[in-house]
Amino acid sequence: MEAMTSPQQVSSGPIIRGCQWLKSLPNKFCDKTMEIARKTKKLGQDDPRRIVHALKVGLAITLVSLFYYFEPLYDSFGDSAMWAVLTVVLVSEFSVGATLGKGLNRVLATLVAAALGTGAHHLATLSGRKGEPILVATFVFIIAAITTFMRFFPKVKARYDYGMMIFILTFCLVSVSGYRDDQVLKMARERFSTILIGCCASLIVCICIFPVWVGEDLHKSVAANMGKLANFLEAFGDEYFKVSEESNENNKSYLQGYRSVLTSKSSEETMANFARWEPGHGPFGYRHPWKMYLKVGNLTRDCAYKVEALNSYLNSKIQTPAEIRGKIQVPCKSVSLECSRALKEMASTFRNMILTTSAVMHIESSKIAAEELKSLLKTNLWEEADLVEMIPAASVASLLPEIIGCIEKISEAVNELGEAASFRKSIGTVLPEQPDSIQHTAISVSHCVVIVAE
Amino acid sequence: MEAMTSPQQVSSGPIIRGCQWLKSLPNKFCDKTMEIARKTKKLGQDDPRRIVHALKVGLAITLVSLFYYFEPLYDSFGDSAMWAVLTVVLVSEFSVGATLGKGLNRVLATLVAAALGTGAHHLATLSGRKGEPILVATFVFIIAAITTFMRFFPKVKARYDYGMMIFILTFCLVSVSGYRDDQVLKMARERFSTILIGCCASLIVCICIFPVWVGEDLHKSVAANMGKLANFLEAFGDEYFKVSEESNENNKSYLQGYRSVLTSKSSEETMANFARWEPGHGPFGYRHPWKMYLKVGNLTRDCAYKVEALNSYLNSKIQTPAEIRGKIQVPCKSVSLECSRALKEMASTFRNMILTTSAVMHIESSKIAAEELKSLLKTNLWEEADLVEMIPAASVASLLPEIIGCIEKISEAVNELGEAASFRKSIGTVLPEQPDSIQHTAISVSHCVVIVAE
Repeated sequence: MEAMTSPQQVSSGPIIRGCQWLKSLPNKFCDKTMEIARKTKKLGQDDPRRIVHALKVGLAITLVSLFYYFEPLYDSFGDSAMWAVLTVVLVSEFSVGATLGKGLNRVLATLVAAALGTGAHHLATLSGRKGEPILVATFVFIIAAITTFMRFFPKVKARYDYGMMIFILTFCLVSVSGYRDDQVLKMARERFSTILIGCCASLIVCICIFPVWVGEDLHKSVAANMGKLANFLEAFGDEYFKVSEESNENNKSYLQGYRSVLTSKSSEETMANFARWEPGHGPFGYRHPWKMYLKVGNLTRDCAYKVEALNSYLNSKIQTPAEIRGKIQVPCKSVSLECSRALKEMASTFRNMILTTSAVMHIESSKIAAEELKSLLKTNLWEEADLVEMIPAASVASLLPEIIGCIEKISEAVNELGEAASFRKSIGTVLPEQPDSIQHTAISVSHCVVIVAE
Repeated sequence: MEAMTSPQQVSSGPIIRGCQWLKSLPNKFCDKTMEIARKTKKLGQDDPRRIVHALKVGLAITLVSLFYYFEPLYDSFGDSAMWAVLTVVLVSEFSVGATLGKGLNRVLATLVAAALGTGAHHLATLSGRKGEPILVATFVFIIAAITTFMRFFPKVKARYDYGMMIFILTFCLVSVSGYRDDQVLKMARERFSTILIGCCASLIVCICIFPVWVGEDLHKSVAANMGKLANFLEAFGDEYFKVSEESNENNKSYLQGYRSVLTSKSSEETMANFARWEPGHGPFGYRHPWKMYLKVGNLTRDCAYKVEALNSYLNSKIQTPAEIRGKIQVPCKSVSLECSRALKEMASTFRNMILTTSAVMHIESSKIAAEELKSLLKTNLWEEADLVEMIPAASVASLLPEIIGCIEKISEAVNELGEAASFRKSIGTVLPEQPDSIQHTAISVSHCVVIVAE
């Protein structure tokens, strides 16, 4: 009986639903607006430099467009002056490195392509009115195909991709314009000059108002990644050997932080590529060894893979009984804690660009603890235990020394980088038990850092 | 005595070095040329579609520029026709998805910005000759700042970054041109039309001549990643339990292949973003669940982290003696091999878009082997062994069952994806021992795959 509905009911169904949908629209709209507002606020709070960047770009574009309104730019270049405005839009990026890289790519590619395009146009005109389009088309085809193929070379792709595109673009613009306009040389010159002006305007705003140095970001990010691994290792001991039944919230976030390290490769590579365009600034001199950051980053990731393996034993189905785990608790916690201290020390001195030996001392302490652990394992302390239940704890005990090996490699790479980048060296008695005091009492053998503006 | 050199010697030193350097130049030049030629050949051989792409871009640009030479385009649009040529240069990307994404971004952003820009210009002219620049500058500043900030939203960045840039660009172009030219509406219309023509030309060439579908690449890459893990697991047993002393070359490459899976996250995300722009094609229907590929990819990476842990035991300093390892050889190899077969089966049926149950059967077999391994471990077969030496083999024995868990999760995600993407289902008795035959004899419950051309 209930299945039968009157035609009225059927036809009113969609109308009622429609009305309900219309009624819910303002609510939905409000919810969506609130959500966007919340996200916007979070984006701004996470990194206030984003807001500054948006204002900077607005300022740069407005300035150049006003320049177009008032006489000087327009009088010299006419309509081509618009290229200056467009260049500012296209070149303004978040960091100095990205802006400089894009700007240089654009200026140099325009220069070369404008020259080649003018040459191609002249060569084409020599062959008469009929031969011209054939020759220009041939040139355009060859240049476009070769340059497009070159964009596949990994090195070219990483640093000159934008330049390659602008090269084809300008070459086509200049040589093809020759069909309709004989003042090709004038056009090429105007295009180059206006693009140069646009790039300069963009760079001045980018560097002079709260500059964002991508090299500094890379430096901090590499140090932060070490810190994340250190946080895990610090919390791991308490969590695995469960001091209190409920683990505290702080530990939980510490234990998850390392996961972002696993997938940080591509962002580090992008940052290193941009950083190489940056002039010396602050503590980062000219020809700072940005490539070596990638090595440190890779080793940190290798360590993160081990940490990932360690993490799997926290949540594994088969767990070694607490009383058996308790037997290796002291040396295991000691290794994990010393590793954490070594990484923290490295992260902090790396961030401050100081070379100390205190990380090495923590590594040595952790090795001693690892030896203790090894000899403890040799005493057959688990004789009566079930082998299957024992394996997880044994695996943890074998993973920890491997992590020491990883940290040692990171430490070597950091020292190598420190030598190449002339980090300061700290003098003084280094007390391995008080890592914080070292950093503060470090007397730096100052090495003059020259700030090169361009 | 040897330290003393005559002034002649001193001055001739640099000259000799200079001569030597000059002499070595042709050789260096030859070497460099040969190296570039070699790299170029390798790039082409690795993926011949790259050569085709370069020729396609050359063709598209040449065609549109000839269009500019002959009357139709130039007569309707005048100098603005150049925008069509530039659009082809800027929009032509390797894959259909990337080209379509960039093209749509460009066309839509131009449409909206041109309309807004014209509106802003009209509003500004209402305020008289003096108020105009102030109003236009204010509009430009606000639009540029807001749009630049919006580019930081992760979702916007992933899919609409280019559109946002073109939006600012066109808005500035149209509204700022108003300073000098009153025919703003005409300009906005011309810009939109020429960009539309350029995008269409670029898309026609991209889709009609040997199209590269990024969705297909993503599909193959996810399957290939599973295959790489399978290769490792296949070779692992022989390598760890060293059947022959010298491991063969094939195994070596098999054991290293999985490493690229660890860092595949960002490239998969890029591909998935592009793939979502693509129309249905071949077996990939409209609204193919590209996002679910990322889930499968993430689970494959989680499995790769375990494999990385397993790999570390191949080269670890402390090794369990061969005779002890020998005791767990049979079940360990069996687990590893069944896991490998399950992954291979999944990779192959995934690639062919068929849902089979044979992978599940291999997983079940591997679970049985894992149970055998577990009961073997419970027999205290290593009673007399040294615990420290025993740990690596025990860890391997505990890691293998975890890998089964990972593979099970991958299998579930693949099935989920298969349901959502309507993979064909194979009917017939599935013989777990002959994975190849399954695939060939599979009778597909055909599900109509509609090839949508656009």
